[in-house]
Amino acid sequence: MCHHCVIESVKSGMLSRRSFFTGSVAAGAAALAASALPQPALAQAATKAEDLTHELFETFPTYFGDQQLFIDKKFNFKEHSFNLNEWRINEHTGTHIDAPLHFSADGKSVAELPVEDLVAPLVVIDIRAKAAENADAQLTPDDIKAWIAANGELPQGAVVALLSGWGAHVETEKFRNVGADGKTMHFPGFHIETAELLLEGSTKAIAVDTLSLDHGPSPDFAVHNKWLPTGRYGIEGVANLDKLPAKGATIVVGAPKIRGATGGPARIFALV
Amino acid sequence: MCHHCVIESVKSGMLSRRSFFTGSVAAGAAALAASALPQPALAQAATKAEDLTHELFETFPTYFGDQQLFIDKKFNFKEHSFNLNEWRINEHTGTHIDAPLHFSADGKSVAELPVEDLVAPLVVIDIRAKAAENADAQLTPDDIKAWIAANGELPQGAVVALLSGWGAHVETEKFRNVGADGKTMHFPGFHIETAELLLEGSTKAIAVDTLSLDHGPSPDFAVHNKWLPTGRYGIEGVANLDKLPAKGATIVVGAPKIRGATGGPARIFALV
Ligand SMILES: [Zn+2]
Ligand SMILES: [Zn+2]
Repeated sequence: MCHHCVIESVKSGMLSRRSFFTGSVAAGAAALAASALPQPALAQAATKAEDLTHELFETFPTYFGDQQLFIDKKFNFKEHSFNLNEWRINEHTGTHIDAPLHFSADGKSVAELPVEDLVAPLVVIDIRAKAAENADAQLTPDDIKAWIAANGELPQGAVVALLSGWGAHVETEKFRNVGADGKTMHFPGFHIETAELLLEGSTKAIAVDTLSLDHGPSPDFAVHNKWLPTGRYGIEGVANLDKLPAKGATIVVGAPKIRGATGGPARIFALV
Repeated sequence: MCHHCVIESVKSGMLSRRSFFTGSVAAGAAALAASALPQPALAQAATKAEDLTHELFETFPTYFGDQQLFIDKKFNFKEHSFNLNEWRINEHTGTHIDAPLHFSADGKSVAELPVEDLVAPLVVIDIRAKAAENADAQLTPDDIKAWIAANGELPQGAVVALLSGWGAHVETEKFRNVGADGKTMHFPGFHIETAELLLEGSTKAIAVDTLSLDHGPSPDFAVHNKWLPTGRYGIEGVANLDKLPAKGATIVVGAPKIRGATGGPARIFALV
């Protein structure tokens, strides 16, 4: 199928979508079953926890470019016999969550995300080859199709993660990768048609190893605006996706449970 | 064994400790093996994730009594087409971690805790009956002994949690429970001799459903000062321990990975 045909077939109806996702109607029906169906936290025993979180420091690169974490030492061991700090921190800093409320008037806050959505099968889609050639690369429906061809149907209620290789750049200018115009950033992200495609299924969240769900040059947060208002969430700045299998890991998303928050720094593990 | 004898037998040497922990030398040796031994993340498949985190809000009760979370709306959907807040937050607020650095000159920060210590078997020790009678109740070595008698040896590298029932009081004055003198708090915690006892084994962390590892009237943070400088960590304000079995759950501690932090609000799950 050509790129256009994939999109059209997915949009045109259930039967086509089933064929797209799995090549068989029966298996496709399972792949597209409602995300509300109870999903075992872990289908099988895990033996290792991989840390998908970057260490966060005050000058960690940010989308807007300004410093977003400030640490204030309030008590110190020498003087007070204990250490304690206060943080001032922007919700969208470091490895963090985008809750539906981030791009909607009254969507779910990060504290309102159901626990069932925070423990999920993790799908890792590797576009490092094309991202190395083009910093503005996007995860397209064809990349989803290639993953399915290699790994079988998308698991129910999965978190679908983009592995672009950008995690390796987190301590350099390459992470934001500002272009010759001095303002446009260049890093990979999800293609809007991929967001639309995944909305047809049970995917709970999309995740990127870059600064934004949308690729750097996006002028309009198209993916944010499409994805988050549906009640699904996003994860930005994920680390260590290169250490995981394409399929089979379970992600555990330690989203901060702060009332009314539009997201926030999260501690994220993959159980493999 | 009387209370004093338990302590003495544990302190007096390996053989006695083994007998204490398990009643058999062979099994006891396993229980006391080094915590550095690799521990499977999950011994068996989990089917449910329980949320051990309280929702955090600006007036959440704090140890020192003052407000410790302030949320500043920086962007709002109506005006800017997205919502975004900045938080000012004390590290020791809500369901949170005490890292070794909290009570030592140069212990591990919360970001330096090994991932292997953040995914662990969870032991829940229920002292609700005595805590209902005495708000200053402590988890004593006898409570550990009773748990072992009922459940077998402590798992290797466990997180040992105190279930006092205090989690139910988080939205009322009872959580801090200030006494007639207008300043002394009254809530349960770990007994110093229990901390000493657990330091003889492989326990990675201790957790409480109250505001402090030490019980309310503690004048000197004895448990904090004994436990944290050894490189082990603590968890305070854990929720929903009453929904878990005494044994068999795996705790996943989403500790914030902020460089140099002495602790911080954490998202914590139990996989059961
Ligand atoms: Zn964000
Ligand atoms: Zn604390």
